[in-house]
Amino acid sequence: MNMKYSLSLGRVAGIQIFVHWTFLILIGWIVFVNLKQGMSPVDILWSVLFIITLFACVTAHELGHALAAKRYHIKTRNITLLPIGGLAQLESMPEKPKEELVVALAGPAVNVLIALLLFPVVKLNPNLIDELDLSKLSHHNFLFSLMVVNIWLAVFNMIPAFPMDGGRVFRALLSFRFQRHVATRIAASVGQLLAVGFVFIGFFNNPFLIFIGVFIFLGAQAEAQFAEAKSLLSGFTVADALMSDVPVLHPNDSIEFSSDKLLSSQNKNFIVVDDARVVGTLNRDQIIRALREGKAHNAVADAMDKNFIELTTDMPLEQAWVNLRNAKKSAAPVLKTSTLIGMLDTENVAEFLMVREAKENH
Amino acid sequence: MNMKYSLSLGRVAGIQIFVHWTFLILIGWIVFVNLKQGMSPVDILWSVLFIITLFACVTAHELGHALAAKRYHIKTRNITLLPIGGLAQLESMPEKPKEELVVALAGPAVNVLIALLLFPVVKLNPNLIDELDLSKLSHHNFLFSLMVVNIWLAVFNMIPAFPMDGGRVFRALLSFRFQRHVATRIAASVGQLLAVGFVFIGFFNNPFLIFIGVFIFLGAQAEAQFAEAKSLLSGFTVADALMSDVPVLHPNDSIEFSSDKLLSSQNKNFIVVDDARVVGTLNRDQIIRALREGKAHNAVADAMDKNFIELTTDMPLEQAWVNLRNAKKSAAPVLKTSTLIGMLDTENVAEFLMVREAKENH
Repeated sequence: MNMKYSLSLGRVAGIQIFVHWTFLILIGWIVFVNLKQGMSPVDILWSVLFIITLFACVTAHELGHALAAKRYHIKTRNITLLPIGGLAQLESMPEKPKEELVVALAGPAVNVLIALLLFPVVKLNPNLIDELDLSKLSHHNFLFSLMVVNIWLAVFNMIPAFPMDGGRVFRALLSFRFQRHVATRIAASVGQLLAVGFVFIGFFNNPFLIFIGVFIFLGAQAEAQFAEAKSLLSGFTVADALMSDVPVLHPNDSIEFSSDKLLSSQNKNFIVVDDARVVGTLNRDQIIRALREGKAHNAVADAMDKNFIELTTDMPLEQAWVNLRNAKKSAAPVLKTSTLIGMLDTENVAEFLMVREAKENH
Repeated sequence: MNMKYSLSLGRVAGIQIFVHWTFLILIGWIVFVNLKQGMSPVDILWSVLFIITLFACVTAHELGHALAAKRYHIKTRNITLLPIGGLAQLESMPEKPKEELVVALAGPAVNVLIALLLFPVVKLNPNLIDELDLSKLSHHNFLFSLMVVNIWLAVFNMIPAFPMDGGRVFRALLSFRFQRHVATRIAASVGQLLAVGFVFIGFFNNPFLIFIGVFIFLGAQAEAQFAEAKSLLSGFTVADALMSDVPVLHPNDSIEFSSDKLLSSQNKNFIVVDDARVVGTLNRDQIIRALREGKAHNAVADAMDKNFIELTTDMPLEQAWVNLRNAKKSAAPVLKTSTLIGMLDTENVAEFLMVREAKENH
């Protein structure tokens, strides 16, 4: 999720909570639909209050995931609230089936807990009506409706549409029997099938289901590809996939010179070497940014990334690739006894997989 | 549009007409919604018949564009019918404002013509009712409804949401005053604004409007970028943007060797040279395809593209780029008095623009 268009609501248990601007569309939609149906301003206010309380429950649901993940030393980058639900961005996903199971179940469990806590309040208070009518909310049926909707939330999230919670539970259960990438592929296929169903149902009922369906479809695809790629890379080392042809720059070269190098070849990533020692990396985006800042005559040393990742030939390729992705680096130098012997970039790793797959499938 | 999931309906005036599989969803939707409302099978049949007739009118609308374009020697690749409307794929767009105006207006004009032809039939026939009720179609109000819907089609298409017909008319009118890429940018911005409005309205009314909105938004962006890039390239020649660092292969090299070259560098496009003469080009996709076909030990000559484009240094860059795009080539050799002195690929042209824009905007 792009955080650029999100508003920070503050931190809970050290985790930043964001609300995406499109959330305003949801509020606008509710106000508009209710106005159209001739609802009174007080009733509309109850509806809006209900949606906000409901999203507080969604936040609690996501915090459930985050706190369960913390038990396994997985940090949560942030939680973002979208009109179609919440999203907890974990730094990584637990790979052990049992841990994934616990983390996936922790979210819906929070909604069940909220419902259980509301149950005695609703039952024991004679002023509260246990009648579900979301179009006629008041202080009489507010808590009962909230209880029911929390049960809905738990049930809806347990639909086995990977990467929804139920889909993760499904994958974790499959992982006890199958290899992880196979389990992911099965769960993703089931998820995509259900996603198509969501889109279809969304056309006749709730347009939000269309968006949820699209999210699930794309999410399932991305996770399946990631798991597949990771599994295909296992067993190889960096030495197998590195590029021996390394375009090199000197830290004293000008940015202008690096942009000429960029334009005269198909290279997009460069390694900066001083006195046989790697001192940085420079990619297309960094060159363009430096030019835009008027640094054409500055040295490459001013614009290069000094905070690069050093890879060695014997490192597992899977690990190197995950490190590049997590650190958002496009390329890294490969060293052998501190001498530069090659480089690795994410595109070349993808090419390596394509070539291997093509050779095997002929 | 991807033609893979489309069914050919045959040719009209030499133009292939396709119907996209998602069209079935539209038919399914109509049947489902009508069944839900307890409509009789006969009434549902009338609804389906109406939609099919309506899409015949949409086809006529697209043929209007195609035949007008033909006057200016622009061919139409095909016409595809989608649930949200029709799409005529012209080989290029007329660049002269007057010609664009005629081509854009020719579509809605067909719908006006159909409505005008239906008018006397409806008026003079006492059995036909002039009552619009799309939920209760019969042989009495079918033609009148068709007439009204054709007027709707003409009006809806004239909304100035570029790249819809009205937006093209708007751009053509702007082009009389502004440079083409400026006119495109203005029309695209207005189009995107209206597209956001369509998506918003779609939420409350017709979900198809959401898809139309997304189509317009992306379409406007793509066309504005294309016009912008073309205008930025004008004034340059191929010599300004070519890559002097050319990875070369020999036609007798093996595919395996070319895939090693691919993996050991950042190069994705190669020029095949025999005896100082360019004989072909080879790119990543072609190497992967050859490997998949088990041709690892075959010669590069077996897999290379012999039908390449030859560029010369003094050729206008704008023209070279449009030629590459239209021929769907990723790269082309650049020759000077039949000697290879460089190559041009679409990615490098994009880099050339990025670097120039960055240098100017600092």
